[in-house]
Amino acid sequence: MRIAVIGAGAWGTAFSRLLADRGHAVDLVTELAPQAEAIAASGHNPDFLPELALEGIRALPSEQSNDVVETAELVVVAVPSSAFAGVVAALPGQAPLLSLVKGLDPVSGERLSARVHGRRFAVLSGPNFAHEIAAGLPAAAVVASEEEALAGRLQLEIGSLRFRVYVNDDVTGVELCGAAKNVIALAAGVVDGLGLGDNAKASLMTRGLAEMIRLGIACGARAETFAGLAGMGDLVVTCWHREGRNRRAGELIARGASAEQAAGQIGTVEGLTTAPVLRALAGRLGVELPIDEAVCTLIEGGDVQGLAAELMGRRPREESWRLRLS
Amino acid sequence: MRIAVIGAGAWGTAFSRLLADRGHAVDLVTELAPQAEAIAASGHNPDFLPELALEGIRALPSEQSNDVVETAELVVVAVPSSAFAGVVAALPGQAPLLSLVKGLDPVSGERLSARVHGRRFAVLSGPNFAHEIAAGLPAAAVVASEEEALAGRLQLEIGSLRFRVYVNDDVTGVELCGAAKNVIALAAGVVDGLGLGDNAKASLMTRGLAEMIRLGIACGARAETFAGLAGMGDLVVTCWHREGRNRRAGELIARGASAEQAAGQIGTVEGLTTAPVLRALAGRLGVELPIDEAVCTLIEGGDVQGLAAELMGRRPREESWRLRLS
Repeated sequence: MRIAVIGAGAWGTAFSRLLADRGHAVDLVTELAPQAEAIAASGHNPDFLPELALEGIRALPSEQSNDVVETAELVVVAVPSSAFAGVVAALPGQAPLLSLVKGLDPVSGERLSARVHGRRFAVLSGPNFAHEIAAGLPAAAVVASEEEALAGRLQLEIGSLRFRVYVNDDVTGVELCGAAKNVIALAAGVVDGLGLGDNAKASLMTRGLAEMIRLGIACGARAETFAGLAGMGDLVVTCWHREGRNRRAGELIARGASAEQAAGQIGTVEGLTTAPVLRALAGRLGVELPIDEAVCTLIEGGDVQGLAAELMGRRPREESWRLRLS
Repeated sequence: MRIAVIGAGAWGTAFSRLLADRGHAVDLVTELAPQAEAIAASGHNPDFLPELALEGIRALPSEQSNDVVETAELVVVAVPSSAFAGVVAALPGQAPLLSLVKGLDPVSGERLSARVHGRRFAVLSGPNFAHEIAAGLPAAAVVASEEEALAGRLQLEIGSLRFRVYVNDDVTGVELCGAAKNVIALAAGVVDGLGLGDNAKASLMTRGLAEMIRLGIACGARAETFAGLAGMGDLVVTCWHREGRNRRAGELIARGASAEQAAGQIGTVEGLTTAPVLRALAGRLGVELPIDEAVCTLIEGGDVQGLAAELMGRRPREESWRLRLS
């Protein structure tokens, strides 16, 4: 297939490599011209995964990408959630769109798929740290689409022995998993930063998954999606991997940084963008998200010890009450 | 309450401290006399968590424990699963029994609760690394009993701000979680030992939870128990905590040790005992447990690379097929 990948961050860059290795003709579209020029000149992305060889991948800046995107058979979007709506609105052509983005629309509060009009849509998610995939290590992901044929085709075109692709028709669930897990990982980073230990972190993650499931069910998603690769799988690696941006942001905030300082040091931290959007969504739906609420309080400058007390100290009740899996 | 704790390993020792801190009169029963004598003389357990002060806890060897156990209001059992049946059969009195043991009966293949006759039964499980709890870090656990009144009483008597206790009536689910998670953690250690990365480990854990749920449902347990503290919570910490015995055993085996060598270096590794018992159970029930099967092959001397290929390489299908959560 001829595939245009929009966004040359770590995941867009590593995913372009995966696609090219599967035999596809890949155009990697960068936001700014100098990055594309550097990739074209050196065969490496100087800003992300600089060790990854990008031969066989053509890089070009978005201002020169119209023809390429218009004639592509698939458009892959790998930009921050805050940029998604603007990027998608400007895309020419009608090729199916595969989103790699994990977040919600910060303006409308909607799932990102709601911003896609006039083209078929799928979303890919899972425990996929880009630098491991760039290093050739094995991973697995879910592709979700309301069109079974599109999901099945993407499974065939993208999947390989080192990148297993499963299909799922629960688009809502997969999108919500990708958004909500970053907020839980931020809270897990706070637990790390406060030195509360791995037992406490695992308990928080368990409550976090339950919180994600409650929200998902209220939005019409399926509970089992949250127990799958896009849910538990991605949650686990995002909370535990040392280099995870959201986990690291939480750790820095626990040690005294403001949210702005953490983002300034790390770069895009989706959990910081997503937490207030999720809070508003949960408010409209009447769903309680205590961990998300606590993270919002923290972003707004609230006390970290207060968060810890809130997270650990809520009155225990029957476990099944908290989970309501089905 | 007057409570007898049988077994002075790491968890029995730390749990005795938790109970004494809640104001209970605790007798800690050791297998052999020298350990009890050392604890009585020094106020510390020389073999496990030697830094933990045990003042206020009376230690005595099992050969002198009959009166204490007979008159206790609660008997807590914290021994290896392979010793559980023998220990329980020899207990005098009729006090309720709380099991901290995570495994199955290696002889009968039954859940350990099936070995308890003539007394009320509850099981406690969750992400509870003993050395963190001994260090005063916060944690949470589930107490499951078929008798709501017993679970509720134990929640009140054991729970505290630093050790939150939730109740659950799914004894089958909590017991199976505690047994099966050790086998998945062993496989996760193999992934670590082979250097396959955190993405692969998270995928394995996701498949592992799905495998645990399939087995649980076939045994009459509830899926949501597996998404709770005893399931996902304990699985996460057992697979990720550096010091986890099962994870470490898998890592050693991946690097060339035999199962015997790993156990010789680490001590009790419940996953090694449990894996073949689970395989037999799954066979009787007609449930597929590919990760458990792979771990059994490894224990029997099978090739580690073959395990990795098996774990990563099974043909992808629909994700929901793999999970069957409800």
